[in-house]
This record gives sequence, C-alpha cells and structure tokens, in this order.
Amino acid sequence: MLFLSLLVGSGACGTSEPQNEDTPFTAWELFPEPPRSEGQTDVIELRCDPIDTVHVAFIGLGSRGKGAVHRYTFLEGVKVVALCDLVPENLNLAQAILQEGGFPEADTYSGPEDWKKVCEREDVDLVYVCTHWDLHTPIAVYAMEQGKHVATEVPAAISIDECWQLVNTAELTRRHCMQLENCNYDFFELATLNMVRQGLLGEIVHAEGAYIHDLRTNNFNEEGYWEMWRLRHNEKRNANLYPTHGFGPICHILNIHRGDKMEYLVSLASDQFGMTEFAKERFGEDSDYAKREYLRGDMNTTLIKTAKGKSIMIQHDVTSPRPYSRIHMLSGTKGFVQKWPIQGIALEPFAHDFLEDEQMEELLADYEHPITKEVGELARKVGGHGGMDFTMDYRLIHCLRNGLPLDQDVYDAAEWSAIIELSEKSIENQSMPVKFPDFTRGAWQKVDVVTYH
Amino acid sequence: MLFLSLLVGSGACGTSEPQNEDTPFTAWELFPEPPRSEGQTDVIELRCDPIDTVHVAFIGLGSRGKGAVHRYTFLEGVKVVALCDLVPENLNLAQAILQEGGFPEADTYSGPEDWKKVCEREDVDLVYVCTHWDLHTPIAVYAMEQGKHVATEVPAAISIDECWQLVNTAELTRRHCMQLENCNYDFFELATLNMVRQGLLGEIVHAEGAYIHDLRTNNFNEEGYWEMWRLRHNEKRNANLYPTHGFGPICHILNIHRGDKMEYLVSLASDQFGMTEFAKERFGEDSDYAKREYLRGDMNTTLIKTAKGKSIMIQHDVTSPRPYSRIHMLSGTKGFVQKWPIQGIALEPFAHDFLEDEQMEELLADYEHPITKEVGELARKVGGHGGMDFTMDYRLIHCLRNGLPLDQDVYDAAEWSAIIELSEKSIENQSMPVKFPDFTRGAWQKVDVVTYH
Repeated sequence: MLFLSLLVGSGACGTSEPQNEDTPFTAWELFPEPPRSEGQTDVIELRCDPIDTVHVAFIGLGSRGKGAVHRYTFLEGVKVVALCDLVPENLNLAQAILQEGGFPEADTYSGPEDWKKVCEREDVDLVYVCTHWDLHTPIAVYAMEQGKHVATEVPAAISIDECWQLVNTAELTRRHCMQLENCNYDFFELATLNMVRQGLLGEIVHAEGAYIHDLRTNNFNEEGYWEMWRLRHNEKRNANLYPTHGFGPICHILNIHRGDKMEYLVSLASDQFGMTEFAKERFGEDSDYAKREYLRGDMNTTLIKTAKGKSIMIQHDVTSPRPYSRIHMLSGTKGFVQKWPIQGIALEPFAHDFLEDEQMEELLADYEHPITKEVGELARKVGGHGGMDFTMDYRLIHCLRNGLPLDQDVYDAAEWSAIIELSEKSIENQSMPVKFPDFTRGAWQKVDVVTYH
Repeated sequence: MLFLSLLVGSGACGTSEPQNEDTPFTAWELFPEPPRSEGQTDVIELRCDPIDTVHVAFIGLGSRGKGAVHRYTFLEGVKVVALCDLVPENLNLAQAILQEGGFPEADTYSGPEDWKKVCEREDVDLVYVCTHWDLHTPIAVYAMEQGKHVATEVPAAISIDECWQLVNTAELTRRHCMQLENCNYDFFELATLNMVRQGLLGEIVHAEGAYIHDLRTNNFNEEGYWEMWRLRHNEKRNANLYPTHGFGPICHILNIHRGDKMEYLVSLASDQFGMTEFAKERFGEDSDYAKREYLRGDMNTTLIKTAKGKSIMIQHDVTSPRPYSRIHMLSGTKGFVQKWPIQGIALEPFAHDFLEDEQMEELLADYEHPITKEVGELARKVGGHGGMDFTMDYRLIHCLRNGLPLDQDVYDAAEWSAIIELSEKSIENQSMPVKFPDFTRGAWQKVDVVTYH
C-alpha cells in the first residue's frame, strides 16, 4: 500500500510547482515502525539467567542440522534432548551422530506440527532451527513464547513483518533470539573486526559483502533441498534472497545499532538469464524447468547509507558461473582489506600496494581475534566451514552458560534479514530508495560498540 | 527544477489513495531529450572524407598533452601544426619533443583565448584537447563549429547540458567528436571484448568498472594540476566525477547505443572523511585545506540498468588509501572475467575456480584483439600507460586517414560523461533513480554491435 505522502516532502504534491531545491526527496518509508506495547522495552545487551547445562532441541536435520548436531557433541555443558525432522532417515542419522559422539539418545519427532511439541517441552533451554526458510520465524516466535531461547539458521526472517515478529516476541518474552550467522566467526572476518577496533584501518568509509555462489546444480536437483524449497524462493521473488553471510560481519564492524544505523537502501537487479539457460541445457528446451518464469534477477546489487555516512554494497548471485565470493571488503581512511577474490591488506603509507603474503600472514596472526585465539584450534579440528561454525556454536553456548548477552542479538537478525524485502520493494519500483526500519525503535545509541562478551 | 509530475505515474499525486500496485514508480526524468533542429540527423557510424595527412593542433600541454605530442611523433600521416598552452614552459617542452621526434617546429599560442585562434586555423584537421575539465566541451564545440574534428581528454563533458552541446554540434556540423578514453584500448580490456564477441562468456549479465586511484597527494599539491583545478571539482560536487575509465570498456562490450541502452541509474556516496583527514595531517588542523568543506563523498557507487536487462556497477574513489583498480569485471552465463585486484578468468564448466595463470595467459593470447595484434608491439615500445594511449592515437588517425567511423563516437562521449551529473542528482535526492537521456534520440538500434572498423 504505497501512499505518496510517504514518498515526498510535504507541500510539493498535487501542484505543478517545482519542488523546493533545499528539500531533497526522502527515502520511501514503506515500513513504518509499529509502536511497542505498554511496558515493552528493548533487549539491547539482554542478559538472562546462566544455564549450567544447556538442554538443546534441534528442529530440521538436513545437511545443516546434522552438521550442527555433530558439532554439539564437541561442546561442554550441553545436552541434546530432542531431534525433529519430517524425514525419518534424518532422525536416524542424527541419533547415530549423537551415539558416535558419546551422547545419550535424544527423543525424536517427525510429524508436520511436531516442532510445536518440541518447543513446548519443559526441559528445553534452546531451540536450534535448521529448517527451510519459511519456518525460521514461526518456530522462533513459538519457541520464545514457550520461554525458550532460540537460534535460527539464516535468514532468520523473510519479510519485514517476520522481522518485527522476532523483535516484538524477543522484547516481550525477554528471550534470546540469535541468527546463526556463521560468517561472523570466520578467522579472517574476526581478525579484520579486531583490526578495525584497534584503529589499524582508520575510520571505515565503505564496506562490501556478497553471497556469490553458483547454486544452480543444487537448486535444480530433486534430490537436493527438501521438496526443492530453495528453487521456489528463486522463482517467486526478485530480491537479495540471502544477504546475511556477507552483510553480518560488515554490520558488526560498523557497529550497526550500536552507535550507527542503516538509513536507506537502493537495490538493482539484472534480469534473469542464467536459470533458464541452465534449465534448458540440463532438462531440455521443452522441459517444465526451462519454461518456468523465474523472477529473481541473476545479479542483485544493493547500496546502503548509514547514519554516520558510511556506504555499504551487498551483492547476491547464485546463478552465474563464477568463483565463490563474499567479498568482505573494508575501505578505511588508513587502510584497506579485501578477502575475495584474493586476501589482500594494504596499509598507509604504502596502501597503493597490497602487503606481501608473508607480511599479511604476520599481521593476521598479530590481530587474531581473542575468540579464535581461545577456540580456534578446536574449531579447526571439529570443522564446519573451516571452523567458523563450531566457533559460533561455542560462543552461543558460552554466553548462555554464563548469562552474557549474545554476540548476535534479535536486532541483528532483523536488520540483516530485512534486506530481503527492502531490496524486493526497491527493485519493484525501479530502484527507489527505501528507508530502513529502526528495529531498536530509538535504542540504537544505547551502546556504542559491538561487544563479544 | 524538479516537477513532481515527472517523478510518479499519473493519477497518484495529490490523493491519499494507495498507488496502483501494478504501476511501479518510474525513474526520474530530470533531463528530457531536447528535440533536434529541422534537418538535423544522427551521426551513428559517421564517415567523413579521408584525410591523407592529418594536421593536428594540441591545446593543453600539461602532463597528458606533452605525452600525446610525444606519441604523435611515432605516427605516420600526421603533422603537428599548432601547440597551445597558457604556460610558456609547456610550449617549449612540447617543441623539444617534436624536435626530438624529427618533426618540424609548430606554431605556438599562449594567450587565454588563443585556443579559439587555433580552432580557426584553416590548416587544422584535428583539435586534440588536453586542458583541465572545464574547457573540454567549450573547445570541442568551437572546434567543430570551425569545421574541425575533435578529440578530447576525459571527461568530454561535465554536465548534461554540455553532453547535449557536444551531440548537437556533432550532428549539425557532421564532424567527429571522440572522447580520448584510453582504457578502451588496454590489451586486457580489448581481449575481453573479443572474448565476449566470440561468445566465450555467454550472455553478459552484469559488469563492473571503477576509477579507484588515491589522488590525494596530486590533488593537494600546489605544484600539481594547474591552479589546483582538480581539487576544486572535488570540493564543489558530490558525484562520480571521473567515470569513463572503468565505464567505457564496459559500454562497448555491452553494445551501448548499438542495440542496448542505459535506462536509469541510482548513485550513493559515503560522506567525506578522507580529504579532511589528509589535509589535517599534511597541512595542520588549522590550515585552510583542513577547514574547507569538501562536498565529494569518498566512495561513490552507481548502479545502472540497461534496456536489455543488464546491470552495471561503477565506482569512484580518489581519496581512500587502497591499491589502484578499475575492476573491469564481466559476469556472463558461460564465464567470468575480472582484472583487479588480480586478473582472473573462469569458464564453464569449471567456473568455480579461476584458470591457472598459464592457461589464462594462453587464453589471452588466443583472444588477443585484432587491433593490438596490429599495433601492440609498437604501442608497447612507445608507451603511455603500457601502450594503450598509443593504440588509441593510432586508431584515431587510422580512421581519419581512411574515412572510417571512429571507434568512439560523440554518443559514447556523452553517455560516459553523463554519469557525472546524473549521479550528482541522484545523490542530492537520497539515491533516487534518474533516467538516462537517450543521446541518440531513438537511433540506438540503428546498428547492433560496436565495430572497430
């Protein structure tokens, strides 16, 4: 529902007068912030009672879910009490993983609505969600309503409405809601976060992230994602459908909702070329797959401006044949870092050249983040995208056991996921600027830096 | 003068009704196309009478101008008849270059308006403009009005009005107006153009270019650019001030105004951080330079959509300490190419990895463009950014001597330079989409591919 009064400054509409040149157009406030209920307050730096042994229930045991169960068998102070999946074989495989890790058998659930029963169990402290995207928010909300903390795979939400559901539920129930953004725990990303905190790169002016990963073979695979759910999203929506991997690390580096916030975005997508071409070659010109309409343009580029004047570029392309990239680029007033296509660091006063590999490795060692210093060795052994998955799990459990604020809070989950619908609306309207909702409703300056406690 | 009626679809303004959701907002037509004069027609693929010996006049003999004079002494079929610059020393140095190259002495001009006398000379065929940016269009227009062909350094124009002046004058006088975009003649860029024409990368879906070059030392140097003209532009305008180096090669690869055209752009700039910080450190906190207001944000990112559904990203940053980059990235349905930060090529069905260096070098040799095959060896010897400058000069003179259409026409000059004011207007209005003028006024489908004759 697009009201023009939201689009332009007052006084200019309905006349043929030129707009006052001192009154620039403002970004389009399509998603105004709903007011809080009475007594509802923010959950910035939320602390909950420490939990000695965290009782975990896993919902969704496909590839990501089974990997998580495996990693949890290496954690101290956890007990896996429930496993839930529609596919019985996944339950069996997950039980086998527990057994192999020396963990007791967990209760299993396989009915379509059984995730509710899991959330309702009195002995569960943490619900860990690895389902397809459509269920992330419904399960997270229901789990918090049952008094549980929740951790959900990315994206935590696929609409602005779902983002608000997560925020409101977390604020009302005072439960943790963490989006499982593993890339925030990558060794390189954490080292660059540390470099920025130590001032090595000066003031960060511009940052870039991406999810560029050719998923055509996975998406067009009837044996792949359950009932091909991922292809359906790519058919139905033209947006940056999967923004968080490249975006999360940048948002923490820029202290988003800890002193800075995102003001507006513009998003532009190429048309769709690659999915149809791939489907024709794989399945034939006359196949159903070749004839379907795929709405998602191959390359999505989204630009964001923050309150403190920083610019961010985020890209999404899961169709084009090209090497994987999350970019992870930071450009500051004293130096420059980029992770893809090659790791490179350049520092004043010699920033016109990248450091030699050996110098870069030394610098990365010098600036290794305290978290990976602590857990990196074990994380590399356990694995999961080179260790970052285990580091993420370790940190979540560490914070829950010690009653600390989580590294990633519900506002992170909402902000990073919000790109999906915000970019979609911008694209629908020829890349119009769309205002970012402030999911903290004014609390974004309550603390001034992202802290991993 | 911003009229709201240009901004939105009809019927939505002045009411509180929601806009029809089937009627997306359209990009902002700030710069409507002025009609042609009676009898005025396009200059697509313009051919003029062959010139046996091209009589050249150089206006502006700073660093670029003197380099051009040097290169011209290696060309056949040219005679340098006039040299023009405000600084007498530049004239002496240019004469010495001619002498060293075995060329006869040229007439010299050094008065503030002497460029007009140069354009008026009857014996001049080509006016070659290497002045500061403000004079590119005035001299080019005046030269064409005097019946001369003109080649001008980049950017050819610094406003949309100047773009139209160039187009209208070229169409009315039937003279060539070439923007001297040397990067279109780089060996790598030309090889990738050839790859695209041969279909190696499939359909190009997305392309990226940039001018990322730390110019702080040059801009803040009283001995540098004449009267520090370049710093003044960076003080006065928030825009992509220098778009053509990264943009030109991409536009030719995408056949812009030869079957495709640019529809609209959005542009977003970070705030300004780096110039003030540099000025404080270089000249002191209390210096005039430290206290000035610099309007240009450090990083400008501009996104463009074409009529055929391709997306383009163009960046500009001449302030941040980081390695040089024009990016030059092409993403197609069959392969991928990127030049910065490292040269990389990836091809189906193994496009998840870049080719090994040796394979890439073989491929680049196999796809070397006919132009560099012809002139590359001499170009490397003469030099000028590794040879591309000489290749550019060679091609211009070759086409003039043979009565051929130039590689770069006046519409290229206008389109590539137009980014400056289009991005500026978008930024002034929170990244609003701004419609690209069609400088060909409908002739963009007259030919369907860029041809180097």
